[in-house]
Amino acid sequence: MNSLVRCRILPWRCPPLQLRSFSSTLPQQLIKPISELPHCIKPSYIQRPQNTLLSLQWPSPPRNILITKKKRTPGITDSLVEYAQHLHSTYPAINIILSPESSEEVHSRVPFPVYTYAEPTSNHSPEYLGDKTDLVCTLGGDGTILRASSLFAHSALVPPILSFAMGTIGFLGEWKFKEYKRAFREVYMSGASDAYAHLEFPDEHLASEDIVPSAPPTSPSDPLDKPLTYAAIRGKAMGSSRNARILLRNRLKVGVFGPDGARINGASDDGDTYALNEVIVHRGSSPHLKIIDVYVGNRFLTEAVADGMIISSPTGSTAYSLSSGGSIVHPLVPSLLLTPICPRSLSFRPLVLPANTPITLRLGEKNRGREVEVSIDGKRISEGIGVGMEVRVLGERVRNSAKEWCGGVPSIVRGTVGTEEREEDHWVGGLNALLKFNYPFGDQDSDGRH
Amino acid sequence: MNSLVRCRILPWRCPPLQLRSFSSTLPQQLIKPISELPHCIKPSYIQRPQNTLLSLQWPSPPRNILITKKKRTPGITDSLVEYAQHLHSTYPAINIILSPESSEEVHSRVPFPVYTYAEPTSNHSPEYLGDKTDLVCTLGGDGTILRASSLFAHSALVPPILSFAMGTIGFLGEWKFKEYKRAFREVYMSGASDAYAHLEFPDEHLASEDIVPSAPPTSPSDPLDKPLTYAAIRGKAMGSSRNARILLRNRLKVGVFGPDGARINGASDDGDTYALNEVIVHRGSSPHLKIIDVYVGNRFLTEAVADGMIISSPTGSTAYSLSSGGSIVHPLVPSLLLTPICPRSLSFRPLVLPANTPITLRLGEKNRGREVEVSIDGKRISEGIGVGMEVRVLGERVRNSAKEWCGGVPSIVRGTVGTEEREEDHWVGGLNALLKFNYPFGDQDSDGRH
Amino acid sequence: MNSLVRCRILPWRCPPLQLRSFSSTLPQQLIKPISELPHCIKPSYIQRPQNTLLSLQWPSPPRNILITKKKRTPGITDSLVEYAQHLHSTYPAINIILSPESSEEVHSRVPFPVYTYAEPTSNHSPEYLGDKTDLVCTLGGDGTILRASSLFAHSALVPPILSFAMGTIGFLGEWKFKEYKRAFREVYMSGASDAYAHLEFPDEHLASEDIVPSAPPTSPSDPLDKPLTYAAIRGKAMGSSRNARILLRNRLKVGVFGPDGARINGASDDGDTYALNEVIVHRGSSPHLKIIDVYVGNRFLTEAVADGMIISSPTGSTAYSLSSGGSIVHPLVPSLLLTPICPRSLSFRPLVLPANTPITLRLGEKNRGREVEVSIDGKRISEGIGVGMEVRVLGERVRNSAKEWCGGVPSIVRGTVGTEEREEDHWVGGLNALLKFNYPFGDQDSDGRH
Amino acid sequence: MNSLVRCRILPWRCPPLQLRSFSSTLPQQLIKPISELPHCIKPSYIQRPQNTLLSLQWPSPPRNILITKKKRTPGITDSLVEYAQHLHSTYPAINIILSPESSEEVHSRVPFPVYTYAEPTSNHSPEYLGDKTDLVCTLGGDGTILRASSLFAHSALVPPILSFAMGTIGFLGEWKFKEYKRAFREVYMSGASDAYAHLEFPDEHLASEDIVPSAPPTSPSDPLDKPLTYAAIRGKAMGSSRNARILLRNRLKVGVFGPDGARINGASDDGDTYALNEVIVHRGSSPHLKIIDVYVGNRFLTEAVADGMIISSPTGSTAYSLSSGGSIVHPLVPSLLLTPICPRSLSFRPLVLPANTPITLRLGEKNRGREVEVSIDGKRISEGIGVGMEVRVLGERVRNSAKEWCGGVPSIVRGTVGTEEREEDHWVGGLNALLKFNYPFGDQDSDGRH
Repeated sequence: MNSLVRCRILPWRCPPLQLRSFSSTLPQQLIKPISELPHCIKPSYIQRPQNTLLSLQWPSPPRNILITKKKRTPGITDSLVEYAQHLHSTYPAINIILSPESSEEVHSRVPFPVYTYAEPTSNHSPEYLGDKTDLVCTLGGDGTILRASSLFAHSALVPPILSFAMGTIGFLGEWKFKEYKRAFREVYMSGASDAYAHLEFPDEHLASEDIVPSAPPTSPSDPLDKPLTYAAIRGKAMGSSRNARILLRNRLKVGVFGPDGARINGASDDGDTYALNEVIVHRGSSPHLKIIDVYVGNRFLTEAVADGMIISSPTGSTAYSLSSGGSIVHPLVPSLLLTPICPRSLSFRPLVLPANTPITLRLGEKNRGREVEVSIDGKRISEGIGVGMEVRVLGERVRNSAKEWCGGVPSIVRGTVGTEEREEDHWVGGLNALLKFNYPFGDQDSDGRH
Repeated sequence: MNSLVRCRILPWRCPPLQLRSFSSTLPQQLIKPISELPHCIKPSYIQRPQNTLLSLQWPSPPRNILITKKKRTPGITDSLVEYAQHLHSTYPAINIILSPESSEEVHSRVPFPVYTYAEPTSNHSPEYLGDKTDLVCTLGGDGTILRASSLFAHSALVPPILSFAMGTIGFLGEWKFKEYKRAFREVYMSGASDAYAHLEFPDEHLASEDIVPSAPPTSPSDPLDKPLTYAAIRGKAMGSSRNARILLRNRLKVGVFGPDGARINGASDDGDTYALNEVIVHRGSSPHLKIIDVYVGNRFLTEAVADGMIISSPTGSTAYSLSSGGSIVHPLVPSLLLTPICPRSLSFRPLVLPANTPITLRLGEKNRGREVEVSIDGKRISEGIGVGMEVRVLGERVRNSAKEWCGGVPSIVRGTVGTEEREEDHWVGGLNALLKFNYPFGDQDSDGRH
Repeated sequence: MNSLVRCRILPWRCPPLQLRSFSSTLPQQLIKPISELPHCIKPSYIQRPQNTLLSLQWPSPPRNILITKKKRTPGITDSLVEYAQHLHSTYPAINIILSPESSEEVHSRVPFPVYTYAEPTSNHSPEYLGDKTDLVCTLGGDGTILRASSLFAHSALVPPILSFAMGTIGFLGEWKFKEYKRAFREVYMSGASDAYAHLEFPDEHLASEDIVPSAPPTSPSDPLDKPLTYAAIRGKAMGSSRNARILLRNRLKVGVFGPDGARINGASDDGDTYALNEVIVHRGSSPHLKIIDVYVGNRFLTEAVADGMIISSPTGSTAYSLSSGGSIVHPLVPSLLLTPICPRSLSFRPLVLPANTPITLRLGEKNRGREVEVSIDGKRISEGIGVGMEVRVLGERVRNSAKEWCGGVPSIVRGTVGTEEREEDHWVGGLNALLKFNYPFGDQDSDGRH
Repeated sequence: MNSLVRCRILPWRCPPLQLRSFSSTLPQQLIKPISELPHCIKPSYIQRPQNTLLSLQWPSPPRNILITKKKRTPGITDSLVEYAQHLHSTYPAINIILSPESSEEVHSRVPFPVYTYAEPTSNHSPEYLGDKTDLVCTLGGDGTILRASSLFAHSALVPPILSFAMGTIGFLGEWKFKEYKRAFREVYMSGASDAYAHLEFPDEHLASEDIVPSAPPTSPSDPLDKPLTYAAIRGKAMGSSRNARILLRNRLKVGVFGPDGARINGASDDGDTYALNEVIVHRGSSPHLKIIDVYVGNRFLTEAVADGMIISSPTGSTAYSLSSGGSIVHPLVPSLLLTPICPRSLSFRPLVLPANTPITLRLGEKNRGREVEVSIDGKRISEGIGVGMEVRVLGERVRNSAKEWCGGVPSIVRGTVGTEEREEDHWVGGLNALLKFNYPFGDQDSDGRH
């Protein structure tokens, strides 16, 4: 395949593409457009009594796997290649999706095609990504998860995210990278039952050569390396205890509107943006305090005179909101946090509001002539922000009218094998290990006296 | 009726009783035992789409009304008498329940009998109170509501509470006292429908003289003073918009256990205590910091070295927890707050946890020989607190297995007539008026510059 | 006088000058350059036992009075004209200095010349201003005082500042504007003694027509309007109790240095900038946290990962530092405040350090490629800020080696007539009135119980 | 010597004394009364340019050394014995003073007499202790230093304190115990000059046998073990660089007065109590908030409705005040901290006031019938506290009218040999090591983005 072909299938990114000649011996080193992939498989999330986490249930095995990685980290690309090769050799039907940048970097190092998408523009998620991705795997830390989540910032549905820490374990409950084989298998099989035995190739759009695995390594030392075909799991009993556990992280549904009421930002005229952490209104480089009218449940609450305001999800409660003095809120508390940044008030204590309460921040007349910055999950909205602008936020609905769980960022939680009750380890662990929560001060000589 | 009879019906409080001779012309000035009242009528609470408050729905009109009042307030007893007389003359079937102290104070000033109950002992709610009370009316402020709620601290079900502010409007959303006629009628009629037309005297235990109203005042100037019999509402159309709005305030379910695992405190061996605001473990008068092991979801979270720990409901988030640096949490966020009191740590930020997460505070070995105080809604538990003691807390369930709303403290929220959407006025209003939330500092000369 | 003359005497500001033709009947409506004024008179500040404030002592009456005013305030210019006319008519020897903008606005409305100076450039105080100004009067609020103080940001000596509130009384202890006659006389006479009787015109540079007062108004109703010539005070006994009280507000001495150790900002190669409130290092519009190495007393203290850092004077403790969680420090505590802005740490509690401790903020290598903003008293330093940059701060010395008080911003404190002990009213008053310090929450019904 | 003799010389503590028979072979194992010791030697404290610490200067070598130790610590008594024996053998003229309890424990284990004092009563320092002690050595941590300091709570002058950490290094700048020989010699010699050569036995009250050293160990391996007589240092050049460095920690001067204005607490009718850390007014075990009127500089500041109030020294800023949200104040900032404990206000920010500002806390009428607790450095004042009570606090003066340094707790600061500029290590080090100051949270993956 020559580069012209690549150019054809990736027409939207031709200019930056560095054309290279490929050796004819590796004809499969292709970057293919994500549009060629079959449509995504949507899992369901089952709530079980006595358990606050959900169970992941695939109707059929996931095929289209997006892998993202941390930036500027030595060795991270090697890990990505290792992981992709494992998936391809063990789960032959699986397709690997990478970012444009990663696919450039990686495609010549793996003996199978990789799929990629167009770089998103500021107000749009990458085209097709939401429709094609079954599962996201992140290699990195909390920032990598946040960026992966941002790829779906205009989708009501986010695929499950399986995250691996490269280096420090982050706050969002990553798995260790060395566990990747077991972790992926647990996710892949989650919800599998005898019904799997009857599955055939579910999508005819996939050319047959794509799903024929490369020859399996002879006698793999690790059973997790054994190629897993549908036949391999035929008839196996997969108890529900094997299901991957999901923490559904509620997002914020954010709309930004100009003084004329027209939407400033969004995938479409009616499209909100979803934030995993927070939306921020901030003075930016302006020396002037912002004067922000805050409405809660469509009622005027207060006029905030401050560097800025944060509306945060519980997941974001350990990010910027925490720096600004907010409380730490468990991700399973359905709530929004309203936290001021450097308010000119002694009495603006942070608020925790119901997730289904609409909050509006309005930039009133008093700010005339002053700049303001609006950022969603750390990405600044560049245009059209000024006096009269409104940021409207509501907690994302995570159950539909049929009471099925949907929405949110389905985060696959690392479990300790065999100990169901220890699932939420990551949050308590994160408090202690990452936040250095409640480190005592003073020595022990005072007999505990003040 | 002579005092001996009173003594008979109130045998448990004879010693403090001041016997008086009653004039024979007011034979109805009796204090009767609450046990003589018919069993209570339990309302249901209906959730409507697009509305976070619930609608109160009586199966039949409430009859047994407990009225409590603020302590040591000039004129408060006059208001109580006025209110009780209004209820008796306008709603002839209604029975008035008062505290032992109030009944002593009031019974000779009203031309009808009042009912009372035995003073509660430390670990027991007043006998019969939970079984007989249809509705609680409080005259006072937030403290009066808290004390009324404490009367049901050992009941899973609390009657609806209609509260009137005497003086300052409190944070918990009281009505103004001058609105009492309209407010009570709204509550009384809540959920009434044509079906009411067919209601007859619902309880035969009530002697007929009790429900015959005193002669109505001739030509009442206020239609709200018109005696309301069942006939009076027959056939009237009562739209659902007339229903009283209920904010179900979740309580904490608190158990205190000794080092041997035996329950220290509670109505019975298996009885928890319910707290509307918070449970506190505190050093009290001991100069020593307490060392408290905190478990969340049965997992060890941290060792708190502090003056004490607060576990608070959202309703309690504006009480002691706020003084100790906690966030303000809206009462509709299903959550528990874990707030340290003067911790020996720079990094013990308050936590907000899911309401269904069990939290345990354990007084470990390091506290040997040191006193500790445990208080539930401001009432200290006096006995048995020491090393090995555990306080176990869980948010009260407010929906039963049939998904019906139950539990919590059903607080009747003051509505502005005709403006549904302004129902939650009290919380936003309370923030601004009572907490002096977000009072800005500095003058306006600085151009909003820092 | 024609405009050419004005152009000659103010050559440095010709370009923006709007030439106008002046009526020949008001030949004295001149704007003169400040350089023509006599050299300033430096007062001394005397400490008295049992008194934390200082007494202002003029060696001879002040002559050159700089008046500044708040921006964009209706009626403020009328007040300025009224005040200037009062000074000129009552104290004929006095010369009025105005900002370039104000002098343009005002000169044609007053029957005497006004003096002005060149607009300062970013790194330089206005030329001559420090050498010529005896006293500063501000009409406005705290922001106006801050801007007036900034005019002397490169001077070790600041003239005394007499400030009048226009509207809200600010935190910095302004007088009410309606008190201006009494206030100015108190300041003018401060330290006057019999020695004044022997004073002659102290400066021959003043042309005689400048000091001949306009004809006094016939029979002034207010004795404070009576023209005050040197003869008028000859032989009067001016007790020390009449002395104006001075609060010497310590400033920060700030130097900003590039990675090469060269000074980035300053009047000259060895010139520091003085800040009345604070110096700030901030991320500005960059989304990235700054990583700032903090050195205290030339020792490494900590690495701050934060939106920014504030080093504040006690006077600035009620400004940005307060918004960021700093304590309130009385202006007479010789100290520097180190307050982080939104730190990524639960345990970065604000610090209060001795005023004579050098503090250095260094922007280390980890910030490579990232912008940063440095502001001194709200004015941003525009150039040369980047990795390796250092901000070095030291509290200004306010006593010289002869133990005389010098330095600082000498703020004339409003006194209540006849009540010496109430001098510090402004600080306590400011806490209560401006900061809304310690507004209690909750109602009083709870019996003061938690 | 028989026990009767001991009983005679320690008549005030006979009852608890356990009489024992001593073996005649150790006739010197005596406990002697401190009153027999010579009067103390008062050092002076010299300020040097460019140095915020003071230099210790003995007029003649210290002789009477009080040693205190931490409670309930394994091995601590062995260390005390080792230390006392070193002092006795190396500095033969030195007398060891121990607490009554320690002297009982130790006297039979050392071959020389120890001196002791009467246990202090609540309002009195131990008799003679202030008059006889030249130097205090503490073995323990910050609590031990606090207790040692409390022994001088009624003395305007406190001897220098040399503290050794046993285990964790505390916040107050202890030396490591293994450094004790060098540390003591540095202190002992501090300020010594040739003048020392002419010193003779300075006090004839000491019987000659007391100052004859026990036979020196033959050929000590450590030169620090070499007996040091006056002759030994004769003619030696002791540069000023050898001087021990003193951090003079300001104390609070506290008076507690009843509603009648009479002093409740104090060594004498006019005697204040000195606090090294803080004085606290607290609700104790009362559930009621306290209502405390706060006066600053004799002006009413605010009515605090709170669990309590703390007035703290800078040294105490890292103790209870820090737990209650106060800033960290460097011990060299001459200031008082006013920090509320759980105030019922969103806007009671901690205050830092000048050390010479009198602060009064007054328990007003609204507290009638309620208990309150007052504690000075953790010791509760038991009697007479109630409505109308006042706590009056002023920072201790640390320079007398002759501008000599006096007062405060002279803390000998551990220096790093040869590096003058590293003297203040302990404070910065304490912040980082003990307070876990500014521990960052989050992982590093987020690119420093919020």
